[in-house]
Amino acid sequence: MSKTILITGGARSGKSGIAETMTLGLGRPAFYIATAEPHDDEMAARIAAHRARRGTEWQTCAAPLDLLSALRQTDGAGPRLVDCLTLWLSNLMFAGRDWQAEARAMLDALPRLTSPVVFVTNEVGSGIVPENALAREFRDAAGLLNQWVAAAVDEVHLAICGLPLKVK
Amino acid sequence: MSKTILITGGARSGKSGIAETMTLGLGRPAFYIATAEPHDDEMAARIAAHRARRGTEWQTCAAPLDLLSALRQTDGAGPRLVDCLTLWLSNLMFAGRDWQAEARAMLDALPRLTSPVVFVTNEVGSGIVPENALAREFRDAAGLLNQWVAAAVDEVHLAICGLPLKVK
Amino acid sequence: MSKTILITGGARSGKSGIAETMTLGLGRPAFYIATAEPHDDEMAARIAAHRARRGTEWQTCAAPLDLLSALRQTDGAGPRLVDCLTLWLSNLMFAGRDWQAEARAMLDALPRLTSPVVFVTNEVGSGIVPENALAREFRDAAGLLNQWVAAAVDEVHLAICGLPLKVK
Repeated sequence: MSKTILITGGARSGKSGIAETMTLGLGRPAFYIATAEPHDDEMAARIAAHRARRGTEWQTCAAPLDLLSALRQTDGAGPRLVDCLTLWLSNLMFAGRDWQAEARAMLDALPRLTSPVVFVTNEVGSGIVPENALAREFRDAAGLLNQWVAAAVDEVHLAICGLPLKVK
Repeated sequence: MSKTILITGGARSGKSGIAETMTLGLGRPAFYIATAEPHDDEMAARIAAHRARRGTEWQTCAAPLDLLSALRQTDGAGPRLVDCLTLWLSNLMFAGRDWQAEARAMLDALPRLTSPVVFVTNEVGSGIVPENALAREFRDAAGLLNQWVAAAVDEVHLAICGLPLKVK
Repeated sequence: MSKTILITGGARSGKSGIAETMTLGLGRPAFYIATAEPHDDEMAARIAAHRARRGTEWQTCAAPLDLLSALRQTDGAGPRLVDCLTLWLSNLMFAGRDWQAEARAMLDALPRLTSPVVFVTNEVGSGIVPENALAREFRDAAGLLNQWVAAAVDEVHLAICGLPLKVK
């Protein structure tokens, strides 16, 4: 059974940087499984900035929806960084997929993978209650997914100002 | 003097689940003191989901405003879970009550209670500053109440992805 | 080289109170370097409330923009509390200054200061993604500044319900 880690934190809390360091510490080559899709210029710029920072030690795979397939295809070849679960959830909901079933299937398959997986996710529930019902629904789903993944993995760290705080 | 615990965290951070486990660990039967009122369908659905998860080991009391009375009435009978202080504050403010006086009276009475109390509260201050003045005022009051309760209780835990992180 | 500390937390998490206690523990007299400007009544009331709580052990300097000058002017005279970096960033951005250059210059100068510095900052990235593009841009800048300062200082603490949780 492979080592599994969850890194959570707010926007710009340094989650991705911490996750990249941990992933490279688990072996090379490392696989960057990107759930982001460049829907607009702002998102495209974020993706480009992330890619530039990672450098050349990484192989990149896109998995906006079929995360489990990407984990299976890269298994045995090196550690994987999944960045991030919150966007994956958003993609699944937007595509009308059953995110709870997909998440359960992915978590059920985790113990049978042989290479490590580092997941990045977002804390989105610590602001004032959103006025928008859809934002509240997404916030609930994101929090629930975080709880499921945290229960399944070996380690959980909270990113604060770029520093990891071990929670599990 | 009874054991007192505060569990804080963002929305869907697993606060209530952690608090329920801790409360049942302090004795049975356990009392669930609900501050929520089913004002609309969304809230009614949340209350029903919480109640279904708790099962039959709990006796439920409603205390949207008079929390201290509920704590006194159940004292000596078993541990109490107060879920949650943020809604209690919201109810007090909406009813035009002096929330600071009510909170002080409740906290002053805590040392004379004989059964444990586990409080649940919310982190609402870690998003961007709300544009709405009322939301800012509520956010300030919620943070101040959290500080007062944290200073008064024996233990404080932050819920992150369903996991408790001990702060005090 | 002086002792440097960063206190971060959400709104009304008790950051300032924790920072004041830590600053006074590092020597007297203590200097309160305020980055806030009383633009409106709400802000003026917040500043007055902070000032009233601090009492007479403090000398106050205003540094809405030129933080490094204020740190140099007070160096050697006692510990400094900078409250807060998020407002300083906001002031720099609003004034059209290059906040990244100013922040780098300030952090580069830190090791040559002889009196301690305690910085207060805000967690603004743990709510739902703001709909406003300017709010997202500010949130990104605030998070990046927090990471830079956290990497440069000796200690980092997260304020939760008025309690400090040591992160570094």
